[in-house]
Amino acid sequence: MNGAESLVRTLVQSGVSVCFANPGTSEMHFVAALDKAPGMRAVLGLFEGVVTGMADGYGRLAGRPAATLLHLGTGLANGLANLHNARRAATPVVNIVGDHTRAHLQFNSPFISDVAAIARPFSDWVHTAESSLTLAADGARAVTAAQGPPGRIATLVVPADAAWNDAEAPATAPPRAAPRPVPESTIERIATQLGSTRHSALLLRGDAATARGVSAAGRIAARTGARLLSERLTPRLQRGAGRVRIEQIPYRVEDALESLRALELLILVSSSPPVSTFAYPGKPSWYLPAGCSLAQLAQPEEDAEQALEALAARLKSPDMPAGLVRLELPDLPRGALDQFTLGACIARHLPEGAILVDEGVTNSPGTFRATETAAPHDYFSNSGGALGQGLPLAAGAAVGAPERKVVCLQADGGAMYSVQSLWTLAREQLDVTVVIISNRAYAILQMELARVGATMGANARALLDLATPELSWTRLAQGMGVEASRADTAEQFDAQFSDAVRRRGPRLIEAMIQPRA
Amino acid sequence: MNGAESLVRTLVQSGVSVCFANPGTSEMHFVAALDKAPGMRAVLGLFEGVVTGMADGYGRLAGRPAATLLHLGTGLANGLANLHNARRAATPVVNIVGDHTRAHLQFNSPFISDVAAIARPFSDWVHTAESSLTLAADGARAVTAAQGPPGRIATLVVPADAAWNDAEAPATAPPRAAPRPVPESTIERIATQLGSTRHSALLLRGDAATARGVSAAGRIAARTGARLLSERLTPRLQRGAGRVRIEQIPYRVEDALESLRALELLILVSSSPPVSTFAYPGKPSWYLPAGCSLAQLAQPEEDAEQALEALAARLKSPDMPAGLVRLELPDLPRGALDQFTLGACIARHLPEGAILVDEGVTNSPGTFRATETAAPHDYFSNSGGALGQGLPLAAGAAVGAPERKVVCLQADGGAMYSVQSLWTLAREQLDVTVVIISNRAYAILQMELARVGATMGANARALLDLATPELSWTRLAQGMGVEASRADTAEQFDAQFSDAVRRRGPRLIEAMIQPRA
Repeated sequence: MNGAESLVRTLVQSGVSVCFANPGTSEMHFVAALDKAPGMRAVLGLFEGVVTGMADGYGRLAGRPAATLLHLGTGLANGLANLHNARRAATPVVNIVGDHTRAHLQFNSPFISDVAAIARPFSDWVHTAESSLTLAADGARAVTAAQGPPGRIATLVVPADAAWNDAEAPATAPPRAAPRPVPESTIERIATQLGSTRHSALLLRGDAATARGVSAAGRIAARTGARLLSERLTPRLQRGAGRVRIEQIPYRVEDALESLRALELLILVSSSPPVSTFAYPGKPSWYLPAGCSLAQLAQPEEDAEQALEALAARLKSPDMPAGLVRLELPDLPRGALDQFTLGACIARHLPEGAILVDEGVTNSPGTFRATETAAPHDYFSNSGGALGQGLPLAAGAAVGAPERKVVCLQADGGAMYSVQSLWTLAREQLDVTVVIISNRAYAILQMELARVGATMGANARALLDLATPELSWTRLAQGMGVEASRADTAEQFDAQFSDAVRRRGPRLIEAMIQPRA
Repeated sequence: MNGAESLVRTLVQSGVSVCFANPGTSEMHFVAALDKAPGMRAVLGLFEGVVTGMADGYGRLAGRPAATLLHLGTGLANGLANLHNARRAATPVVNIVGDHTRAHLQFNSPFISDVAAIARPFSDWVHTAESSLTLAADGARAVTAAQGPPGRIATLVVPADAAWNDAEAPATAPPRAAPRPVPESTIERIATQLGSTRHSALLLRGDAATARGVSAAGRIAARTGARLLSERLTPRLQRGAGRVRIEQIPYRVEDALESLRALELLILVSSSPPVSTFAYPGKPSWYLPAGCSLAQLAQPEEDAEQALEALAARLKSPDMPAGLVRLELPDLPRGALDQFTLGACIARHLPEGAILVDEGVTNSPGTFRATETAAPHDYFSNSGGALGQGLPLAAGAAVGAPERKVVCLQADGGAMYSVQSLWTLAREQLDVTVVIISNRAYAILQMELARVGATMGANARALLDLATPELSWTRLAQGMGVEASRADTAEQFDAQFSDAVRRRGPRLIEAMIQPRA
């Protein structure tokens, strides 16, 4: 067996069973090995940002890493933005990046770049394989590094000769380590703090925002009156009917400050202190009011669910959580399609157990609010701010959970960054309903431009307006083999969306949004 | 005036008059400044790889830099692959990359990444502005760094507060330094070497491969019998009728070695020694035969045209160059569309002074050969091997030379990496005829897979075959506002292509290629 085959077998034996890929010449031995070693599903993306975004969606759901297969430093570069997002979501990902043979690197081939240096700013672990003989062990270490806890980005650079030379046996990574339990003393201390504070809140993220985690948090709230918070950019939130309601910290600095104004104690659960995404002249980045105490119930590598349950027990919380949501579905909205009527339609038909992927940007809130009382679902949002995450995240989640419906709420501007994802939806016949929110603008930037006190001159319009020419999302989708339709009214959208989620397979609906008067 | 305005004015005063952009919140002051300071054209790309690729096409043609405007480390990351290509082409580019304020970087905002570290592997010059007061001077230094000679990638990171705080006057970069003349002694030495060697060749690249450069090289060939060579990946070649014929070193290692087997002396003119793009087991990377001497007539920062003319004069070369090409146009081909019939049609109708951008990959040679005797034109190829360069290169060239027709020969696989370019063609009504070579495969990788001795198993097919589903390029183009048609035969293609090049504005033809029997 050659190095490539030893690596593929190592990955499979270590629990990595999907490889999202966009290979090139230097990866051909790995591609050949995918056919020699059974157990790995190969999924092609026609652009590397699609590949890494799919690995995020898969890993965020599965809690174990997929592999990516990327071509040289430039192929890796194309995937970096979604690796940034995955890293901010603490998603486990193992990147396999092919490189030239070490002997070839002395020559000035135009394809050469410094792969490890390119990987480093977006990876928690980077290693360049020294030899085909150690490649299996390197692969096992990469899996160990990726699976954490919490999930990490591990990048293994594989020179072509390490892939094609002879290797020994494959290796196996040890099973993922269990998250560390939170010490009793921490539970004790935070229970005391909570008992003596009037205005407290828990900020839940990642592993704390599961159904189990929010249920325990709801019990704590029932006992102490603490608010339950999450951030707009949150990797995963289990919500909807039968779950506990979580408040979202608003996006605008002014609104966020107002929302947190009275807070005296904030308890971080797998989260960081809330700050503004961007800084603005004369406005604070730090959201907490002066004098607000901070406590950390669980670090990202600790067991947040167990800590929340232990804290609930320590506080003698009731069994019934506060903020438990009952199923409430809106009536069929009528007339113009805006983010609120759109959200109502989505809430009406969202299937139980669906995964709702949200890169709706300025038009997210309408759906986020309406689905609060919809059927229970997983909510994935853009976690690191780099646009173009929604579509591949949805595709990857659908690969990871073929039995669940994935609904992708995707703004048109952001959709273009990884538009190639639609082809993979068709190729793999993934069960994803894509809702493109077509507002023909970088609306968030028009808002931000107004905030800097500027009016739209000719150049600003040239950079922030997407109306000339209009993108036709039905044509783009059909061009990549995805069935598509266009909705201009709430009634049309409701009918198309309800049809799409009842059937299986990929489907795109272009929702022509009108700004609310 | 704030820092952003001082920077825009500095760029304009320093001769930078186009800004290819995909801005975000941190760049809004720069966007506002584009409307306050006259003289800069703003061109939007819906993905950053389009933005940097356009800057390459513009700079490669104009010989002076365009600016790019990119959003944070992740926006820059999306543009890196085409910066790699631009750097390999020695194209001058000034990247303006917005970042958070320095005060904000202490917080763990999800949008934060290490912008300078991301820029470094693909930039020749990187600087993070310290203050709004020095931003103008930084901008002038960036232009100086970019314009070389030779052209370089300069990346200026602009923290938001450097953009929004008060600034003084703009600055002006000094005019581009003239390329250094090649010393007499070098000319003398190489003339002597050429005089005493039977099998010699000149390898021309970049500034040596202009009409003037190849004409002087042709005179040297007439006198000495030297072969004139270029590489497949070459940033610019002025060729066609009235110019001098240049041989292309073949892509396959075996063919390249055979082609150069007899060589005793290779003279590099703005070029590096020829090597294989990839290494293969048991095959050499170095293309030159044992005992072949190397001489460097011009370094990239030296005046290659002047050196070639001085060498021609020193050798007392005749005025008439060897290999002068006469206009010869093929007859209308009939029947199936393959790379050769396609190339014949393109050659028949290629307008004089056209810019032919080639990312045809496996299907390039048919057009390259047929256009050798076509009307004189500029030929731009992918310079660094990262796919997705063709479409944005064509768009950028069209921005730089609105009076010239641009023809983009683009393979379908590569086209998907920067498919968003089509929207900018429509937005700016650029005069580009795009020929998509639709072979529904990563054909070059199927060839490379066969070279590693593997057959196409299910996983290899899943990664290298693009036929399921088929991409419809007419729909994709129409979805982005570009008029499009599909050609299944040579006659159809000829009619559509001749129509497209006679009219102005963007147009796409999907050429359904059949592999030649």
